[in-house]
Parts: sequence; C-alpha cells; structure tokens
Amino acid sequence: MTATPYPILLTPGPLTTSDRTRAAMLRDWGSWDTDFNAITARIRQQVLAIVHGDDTHECVPLQGSGTFSVEAAIGTLVPRDGHVLVPVNGAYCQRIAKICKTLGRRLSTIDYAEDRPMRAADIDRQLAADSTITHVAVVHCETGTGVLNPLDEIAQVVARHGRGLIVDAMSSFGAIDIDARTTPFDAVIAASGKCLEGVPGMGFVIARRTALERCEGNSHSLSLDLYDQWKYMERTTQWRFTPPTHVVAALDQALQQYVEEGGLPARGARYASNCQLLVDGMETLGLKPYLERKVQAPIIVTFHAPADPRYDFKTFYQAVKQRGYILYPGKLTEIETFRVGCIGHFGDAGIPGAVKAIGEVLAGMGVEIGMTVAA
Amino acid sequence: MTATPYPILLTPGPLTTSDRTRAAMLRDWGSWDTDFNAITARIRQQVLAIVHGDDTHECVPLQGSGTFSVEAAIGTLVPRDGHVLVPVNGAYCQRIAKICKTLGRRLSTIDYAEDRPMRAADIDRQLAADSTITHVAVVHCETGTGVLNPLDEIAQVVARHGRGLIVDAMSSFGAIDIDARTTPFDAVIAASGKCLEGVPGMGFVIARRTALERCEGNSHSLSLDLYDQWKYMERTTQWRFTPPTHVVAALDQALQQYVEEGGLPARGARYASNCQLLVDGMETLGLKPYLERKVQAPIIVTFHAPADPRYDFKTFYQAVKQRGYILYPGKLTEIETFRVGCIGHFGDAGIPGAVKAIGEVLAGMGVEIGMTVAA
Repeated sequence: MTATPYPILLTPGPLTTSDRTRAAMLRDWGSWDTDFNAITARIRQQVLAIVHGDDTHECVPLQGSGTFSVEAAIGTLVPRDGHVLVPVNGAYCQRIAKICKTLGRRLSTIDYAEDRPMRAADIDRQLAADSTITHVAVVHCETGTGVLNPLDEIAQVVARHGRGLIVDAMSSFGAIDIDARTTPFDAVIAASGKCLEGVPGMGFVIARRTALERCEGNSHSLSLDLYDQWKYMERTTQWRFTPPTHVVAALDQALQQYVEEGGLPARGARYASNCQLLVDGMETLGLKPYLERKVQAPIIVTFHAPADPRYDFKTFYQAVKQRGYILYPGKLTEIETFRVGCIGHFGDAGIPGAVKAIGEVLAGMGVEIGMTVAA
Repeated sequence: MTATPYPILLTPGPLTTSDRTRAAMLRDWGSWDTDFNAITARIRQQVLAIVHGDDTHECVPLQGSGTFSVEAAIGTLVPRDGHVLVPVNGAYCQRIAKICKTLGRRLSTIDYAEDRPMRAADIDRQLAADSTITHVAVVHCETGTGVLNPLDEIAQVVARHGRGLIVDAMSSFGAIDIDARTTPFDAVIAASGKCLEGVPGMGFVIARRTALERCEGNSHSLSLDLYDQWKYMERTTQWRFTPPTHVVAALDQALQQYVEEGGLPARGARYASNCQLLVDGMETLGLKPYLERKVQAPIIVTFHAPADPRYDFKTFYQAVKQRGYILYPGKLTEIETFRVGCIGHFGDAGIPGAVKAIGEVLAGMGVEIGMTVAA
C-alpha cells in the first residue's frame, strides 16, 4: 500500500506515479522560457541515454498519447511509396497495421496466434521473398496479452536485409533492455506514462539520425511530422506547438528517480519481481496465466477468467477497486480474460495486497476458481 | 502577485493556473475506470454549454496541443475533395492554410494586413464567385497580433451561402462569446490551457452533429480522426487512446472554478479589465500598442518595441522575468514587437505589477521610451 487514499493502478499505463513526480506539476511553465526548454533538452538526452543512442540517434518528443508517436514515426520515416511488413500477434500490432492503411502506406502482415511471439525466421523469409518491403514494424511487448517478442533477433534479420526497423516499445521502454549499439533500429517509440513512471500526455520517438535526415516532406500530417518537430526543436530548443508543460516537468522528475533507482537494471528487476509475485500468487489462488512463462514479459499478465458463471468482470473489478486496486480488462476476443499490470510506483506490498484482494473478492462472489481452466 | 514564488505567465497559454487546478493533478486515474470517464463526460457537457450547443453540437476532446485539434477538425470535417477558403491576417491563419496544404485539401486565401480584421464582405464576394468552396476556416482571435475577427458577421455570410464554417477559437473560447444558437458553425476549436485556465495537453472540437455524422473515413490520420474519437467515446465513455488523465482532471477542476466565477461574462470582464489596465499603463510609460483599440481582443496585446538601440528583447525579457513576470516575444516579421497576455489566474495586482516592472527594467537599461513610435 502507499500513503495515498487512492487505488493503486495495476494497469499498463496510466499507472501509479510517485508523489514527487506528481508534485512536479504544481508549477506553471512558460513554453518559450529557457528554464522550460532546459527541461526538454534534459529529457531528450536522458531518454536517448537509456538506449545508448547518443552517437547515432535523436530523441524527438511529441504531444499526445503513445499512438500519436507511433503514427508520427510511420508517417515520417516510411516514404509515401514505402512498403511496411507488420508481424501481428496482438492488438497493438493490429493498430500499427491500421495506421499503415489509414496513411496509405503499402502493408503486408505475418499473422500469429496471440499467445505466440513473432519469429525472426518468418520475417527473414518474407524479406528475402519481397524486395519491395522497405520497413518492418514490430511491437516489443504486446500489451494486448503481455507477450514479449524477440526484438534483437528480428533487428539483426532486418539489418541484414538492409531494411528499416520501427519498434513500438511503448510498454517495455526503460524496463527491458534495448541497446542501439548492438540492436539496429530506425525508430523506437515509447511514452511518458509507462515504465518511466511519468504521467500520460506525451510520447517520443528515438530515431536514427541518418534515417530522420532523409524524411523531409514524408509526413501526411502537420502535427505529427517528426522531421519538422525535430528540426524546429534543434533550431529553437522549443517545441513546435504548445507542449504539455506539466506532463513534461513530471517526466523530468520521473527520469531523475529512474536514475536514482539504478536505471534500467533496477527498474527491470523490480517489475520482474512484481511479475513473479503476481503469477505465483495468482496460481496459488488457482488462477492461470494465459501465456507460458517463457514468453511472458514482466509488464502485464493476462489471466484466464474463472469459468464459473457466478464470475462477472464488472462486479469483480468494482469489488477489487473497493479494496484499493484497479485491474484492467482483457483484450482477447475469443477467450474471457482479465489483465493485471506489474508496472508503476507502488510499494512491495502492492502485488501481494492485490492478490489477497482478488482472492477475497472471488471467494465473496462464491466463484469456484478450480473451474478456471476452460480449455 | 500570487502566493507562488514562480513568475506570473503573461503569455497566451500555457498561462498561470490556480493552485486548486494544479492540485487536481495530484491523483493518478485509471483511463478505463468509470470515475475517470465521468470526468470526461462532465467536461464535454460543460464545454458544450459554454457555446449553448447542447442540442445541436458535440464536444469531442482530443489529446495533444490545440493545433492537433485544428488539424483534426480540418482533416475530419472537410472531405478529401473539399475546398477551404482561409482569410489570413496572422500566423495562426497561416497555420490553418499550411494544414490544408499538408492534408491535400484544396485551398484559397484572402490576404489582409496583420493589423486589420478580416471582413465578412470579402468572404461573401469570394463565396459568390466560387461555388467549389465547401468550407471557410477562420481564426477568432488571432494570437499572432491580438486582433479580433468579426466571427458572427462571417458566420452569417457563410451560412447564407450554405458552406461549412470552421473556427479556431483557441485563444478566445470561454472569454469572448460564441453562441451556437445564433452564430452558425460546423466546428469551434479550443484547448485546455487557454481562457478556461486549465493546463496544456488537450484540445477539443465542438462540432455540429449533423456535419460530424457524415465524416466517416474522411480523416487522413488515425490519431486525429475526430469521427472515430467521437463514435468510440459515445459507445464506451472512454477515450480512444490513452488520455492525458492529469490534464483532464485539471481541466475539470478549472471548469468548476469557471462556473463559480460567473462563467463567460465574468471571465470576459476580468480579461477586458486586465487588457484596459495593461494598455493604459503601458501608454503611460510611452509604449504604444500595435493595434487600434477597436480591433484589439482582450487576450494578448502586441506592443511596438522601443526603437532605442539600447533595447534588446532578451535582456528586457530576462530582467522582467527576474521581477516575476514572463512576457512573450512578438510574432511579426517586419516590425519589432513584444506581446503581453491578459489571460490567466493572477490577482488584481498582476497587470499593474507587470507594468511597473517593465517601466523599471527599461529605465534600468537606459532605454528612451519616447523613441517608441518608429513609423
């Protein structure tokens, strides 16, 4: 439990932030002012350092949700006559495919079951067979289920074929290692309100400088033009359009705490520990994770809903919330599931407390958990 | 002065917000949770009530800066084969023209000097002469200079010709009256961090329901598709992609204070009083406004910079900031100016204090203000 009277968010972002991060929003900033622009510069530098991209890449922040940044990356980095290969094993992969279609970029997909990671060998084969593919776009940790895709293997394959790689690392960035020195990519995209434990309202794209330099005029959108955003920021130190100043200040504060905690190794270890505690605890209750452990990212876990007809997600959700924990609905269409996040700023008691609450609520509802395994 | 040790922002947004508004950001919200969705619903209803649009219009909030909402309105409401007439008398009109070009919408402009309001008669003539024009897009208060355009006259003309009207009311909304019952429009666009005195990070489009209903598939963008955003929100009560939860909660709190203050008449009167105090005070110092009083909106005032070579904006800005006030640079290319905002949550002493600081700083710089009138 934390000191706050509000529920802990066990969701994939927005998530629970620290008091210090939220307190950074108690000041108004002039968006033209040098003090504020120094914050923007510091964030860009610190985010870049997380992937060791200082020499090769640029961090371009963007207003809006993470999806705005994904769309901006596709629209800016893929030329209008480009062709994007999207391996699909979940809802966020599907969203990238939808963005390509909306933007009129040629699209090919490789389809997987939602409980399976994508495979580098399939991408290798597809790239060998189709030389018109210019880019591969993948999701690192697919938040729809929680499955971790083999990013480094995929990156090596894409690089070997000389194509561009665009990575939606929304829910993994800062907790699962991505090293630009050894894992080649044209863009990695993430957002403020995920594993960096800031508040939601901005995203960022870490783009390879030599790729970004060639992107003038590609974008379908003024607001989402990453090239313009980058050039303007380089020239003026300011954001091109009004930045979400309080969100930016909170991310700056969250990044300071990230460094103090010990950076990526510490953040990743904390989430892995949360995930282990969660899966172990839920299995003790009889609740079964949807994914095999070896493909489970330590970010969010999908659980099979109890098959007992006395189970009803809304009732379950409200009762667990009353006990101080906000869960997340499932995103699978064919199987009834619910999700529990492992990320955010909550104390060691957070996960055990949530497991206890879940057990009490299901018992109170008279749900037979033994009936869980429907398949 | 306020109780805060931080400078007062005399800028056109982000602006100075109240302690109560900022304190609303001290809580994390689940974006799927019904408590949060109730806030979204309340904001949509309250914003709509400000323009008396409850029966005819829909408020669709959108992540990002105000420009994101302007682009979303153009991209969604203007069909791909539409033709937009943009009267241009400043930087934000030019931005709308640029959006039309980027989105591939056919564009015509009517050009004005930056110190002149646009004229309904010119739009009337252009619409009569060119039946291919489907929409007129105007800026209500052009923040580049502070000039107020005659919105109602323009709206009557556009309605008489049966074309659609899109209004960027970014810096006027909530302070200068727009009444949907008597001023016909297809869209009015504004943002959280302007005259409603919220923090920046989201905008909204108030769109005529019968117009919005016809817009499926128009948008060039997934993230900026207002039709999808609206339909999803109607169906689920949630935002389509992660909302800036803290910004939303702050706007909700700011709107409660807006109502408590007395709504639009009170907000407008406070800003008008600030503007009068500012112009009078600066004229006493010998500083001349760029605009004639009759075309000056009570939002932001452009002043001619002193012609004395000892004047330098950066030095001036930093010294005034040291005294507790953040000014805004000019946005005119041909004449040196600076701008001072009249909007935001600061006490009655704010404007007189700023004028006093400006006078002291210019005196300290040895600037001869009598040399102001360069023309």
